[in-house]
Amino acid sequence: MIHRILIKQAELNQQKVDILIEKNLISQIGKDLVAEDAEVIDAKGMAVIPGLVNGHTHAAMTLFRGFADDMKLMPWLEQKIWPNEAKMTREDVYWGAKLACLEMIKSGTTTFLDMYQKFRGTADAVEEMGIRGYLSAVCFDRFDPALTEKGKKECEKLYSVVDEYGSRIQYALGPHAIYTVSGELLQWIHSFANDHRCLIHLHLAETEEEVNNSIRQFGFSPVRYLYKLGVLSPRLVIAHGVYVDKDEIRMLSDYGVKVIHNPASNMKLASGICFQFAEMKEAGVKVGLGTDGCSSSNNLDMIEAMKQAALLGKAWRKDPEVLTASEMLEAATCTGADILGLKAGRIEAGYLADLCLIDLQSPAFTPNFNFVSNLVYAANGSCVDTVICNGKVLMRHKQVPGEAEILEQAARCAYNLVKR
Amino acid sequence: MIHRILIKQAELNQQKVDILIEKNLISQIGKDLVAEDAEVIDAKGMAVIPGLVNGHTHAAMTLFRGFADDMKLMPWLEQKIWPNEAKMTREDVYWGAKLACLEMIKSGTTTFLDMYQKFRGTADAVEEMGIRGYLSAVCFDRFDPALTEKGKKECEKLYSVVDEYGSRIQYALGPHAIYTVSGELLQWIHSFANDHRCLIHLHLAETEEEVNNSIRQFGFSPVRYLYKLGVLSPRLVIAHGVYVDKDEIRMLSDYGVKVIHNPASNMKLASGICFQFAEMKEAGVKVGLGTDGCSSSNNLDMIEAMKQAALLGKAWRKDPEVLTASEMLEAATCTGADILGLKAGRIEAGYLADLCLIDLQSPAFTPNFNFVSNLVYAANGSCVDTVICNGKVLMRHKQVPGEAEILEQAARCAYNLVKR
Ligand SMILES: [Zn+2]
Ligand SMILES: [Zn+2]
Repeated sequence: MIHRILIKQAELNQQKVDILIEKNLISQIGKDLVAEDAEVIDAKGMAVIPGLVNGHTHAAMTLFRGFADDMKLMPWLEQKIWPNEAKMTREDVYWGAKLACLEMIKSGTTTFLDMYQKFRGTADAVEEMGIRGYLSAVCFDRFDPALTEKGKKECEKLYSVVDEYGSRIQYALGPHAIYTVSGELLQWIHSFANDHRCLIHLHLAETEEEVNNSIRQFGFSPVRYLYKLGVLSPRLVIAHGVYVDKDEIRMLSDYGVKVIHNPASNMKLASGICFQFAEMKEAGVKVGLGTDGCSSSNNLDMIEAMKQAALLGKAWRKDPEVLTASEMLEAATCTGADILGLKAGRIEAGYLADLCLIDLQSPAFTPNFNFVSNLVYAANGSCVDTVICNGKVLMRHKQVPGEAEILEQAARCAYNLVKR
Repeated sequence: MIHRILIKQAELNQQKVDILIEKNLISQIGKDLVAEDAEVIDAKGMAVIPGLVNGHTHAAMTLFRGFADDMKLMPWLEQKIWPNEAKMTREDVYWGAKLACLEMIKSGTTTFLDMYQKFRGTADAVEEMGIRGYLSAVCFDRFDPALTEKGKKECEKLYSVVDEYGSRIQYALGPHAIYTVSGELLQWIHSFANDHRCLIHLHLAETEEEVNNSIRQFGFSPVRYLYKLGVLSPRLVIAHGVYVDKDEIRMLSDYGVKVIHNPASNMKLASGICFQFAEMKEAGVKVGLGTDGCSSSNNLDMIEAMKQAALLGKAWRKDPEVLTASEMLEAATCTGADILGLKAGRIEAGYLADLCLIDLQSPAFTPNFNFVSNLVYAANGSCVDTVICNGKVLMRHKQVPGEAEILEQAARCAYNLVKR
């Protein structure tokens, strides 16, 4: 007998619909559906949305939440983050990623693109928590040829490690940034990704300083440098892409490169208020949204990320009509899924059953003239009542099994880590 | 017998303390307090903060939440907001304000400075809901002398109406803006406020257009124009103050004028990313925070407003060290209370018992290296568990009595209003 879930009476595009899930797929959407032996979820007073896609984060960095804020980027990294990251064990990463998955589930995220060390720590956490992780182990050689070779071996090894996990976990290559990864390693990663059909997850053009250094060191601004290296491709997903000029946006579009914007992180680290979401979209670049890690943006709430993106984009363009609520929801659902090559992010038969039910009985959804406006501009992650991923219920009535233990263990790891 | 509440074991500045409330005041803070016949609140796993102060809103505009977003300011006002506001009855305002109070309580706000029509509708709602309202009836004459006289009469009348209400409700004068209120009426309001010791609540310098029009119409930029009129004073609270130059900031400081920043509203309406919180503070101006009305910023969550302000301020100054989490909490608590002349916003004996208990058992507060960072950067209004205002418990375990009816009635009013 196949596992079936029948969601009754959920609001979708101002209508009440039933949704039938069979195995891990949405199989039917309609009125008065009947399905014997199905697990029935009463969605009265709730709206249904696709599970959200967090396009850029470092899950296990939840352990550093609130550890060091309101600091300049370099002292923050050098004095606070890097020395403590160097001490992290696989167990630390595991509990940090468990906490991240818990937080993502509670705020409606079902898929994320990650970059971090101790790959298996994160993979184990994702496997257990039931969401989807596109996991890139962060990779850098600091322009040292010995480390370049080590980096290649590491990528090859992890590519096979991922076979030990189920289909919810996918491997992505994770060259950290152009200032930590040599051109040679970037080119090797590019061809490895082509051969093995993986995504490449790279920080790029996050700050003005990075652009200036790129011009000084390589003779080109970041996107042009990647072009010269021959590594622009549809497999490349860049996080940030804040400081790019018009021609670089054109190049990203021509080569099918994807971009993930992280408005809260960029603002908090004062990387810039230049927020070219609309410009990129107009040029045909697929742009998704992310939160970045919890040590820079402090939470993993994609509903908040949608609002931040809309607000920052409007302010930046001095135009309240750009970056509408529905564009933001699109970026955080179907565009995010498209970027990862995942048949999800839409509520249609044949798509993966990654769904959230949103509780409408709250001030944020009262009145409810426009559900999407309310979701993006008035609500936050706490409006999510139920989360289903890959056809399995991960949260009901805002409760995730095992929550208390995860909070406790993650806190224990965090406090021990900074003490040792 | 006097009414007493004893809060046991709340976290305050990294210590566990008991707080004794007698009548409407905090009477004692210490360890192992004992109070016979007190209502005991177990605050284990919770932190205590002062109730938040929303320095600028239009409470009843919750009825227009999500009604018209992603539009330019003038078509939005002319086509959507004003025609519907013209139809509002006192009952509409009452239910809109009840919804606003509910939302404020649920997200930890205990005091707000309002500006709206149908004064009694809002006052009745605030009286019943138990929070504090500094209520200004919006006032304008559109430079028509007949309306100037009417405006004065209206102010005098409402000033006496407020006596029908308890001490939680205070009257403030509410000239809408310099482009809707004549210099004569502004001067009359200034002297009325002096005579009767009221605050004046005025929108000022919100957009570049307003500044340009002010120079064209009056020959001066907004703050200089008020200076020429002789109406700068410590009783004046201006909402926005976005487009002001250095000399104008100096003038605000010299005359003790207070400023309320509304970062989400300014960004969403694309009024500007010029966010001179730090500049004003450095010049000695008291700056508080607000959400503005729900038709422009879409919710009344002051925890979100603190984050927005910090992020926008850092991005604007290109400096991640400015506008720290604790400065934001100060702006939203003690500075806000100071601006209103209220002995609240601090957890000290002798201060008004306006307090919130924050539930720490959630991802946003895990780990809890820095409670204030977590509150401002990771949490949102949903972390508030218990709210006490004026010594009375308004919310326990996230439940406010009468919640369902308020949601229902407010929605009914909103839908009927736009239909008629
Ligand atoms: Zn990152
Ligand atoms: Zn306003």
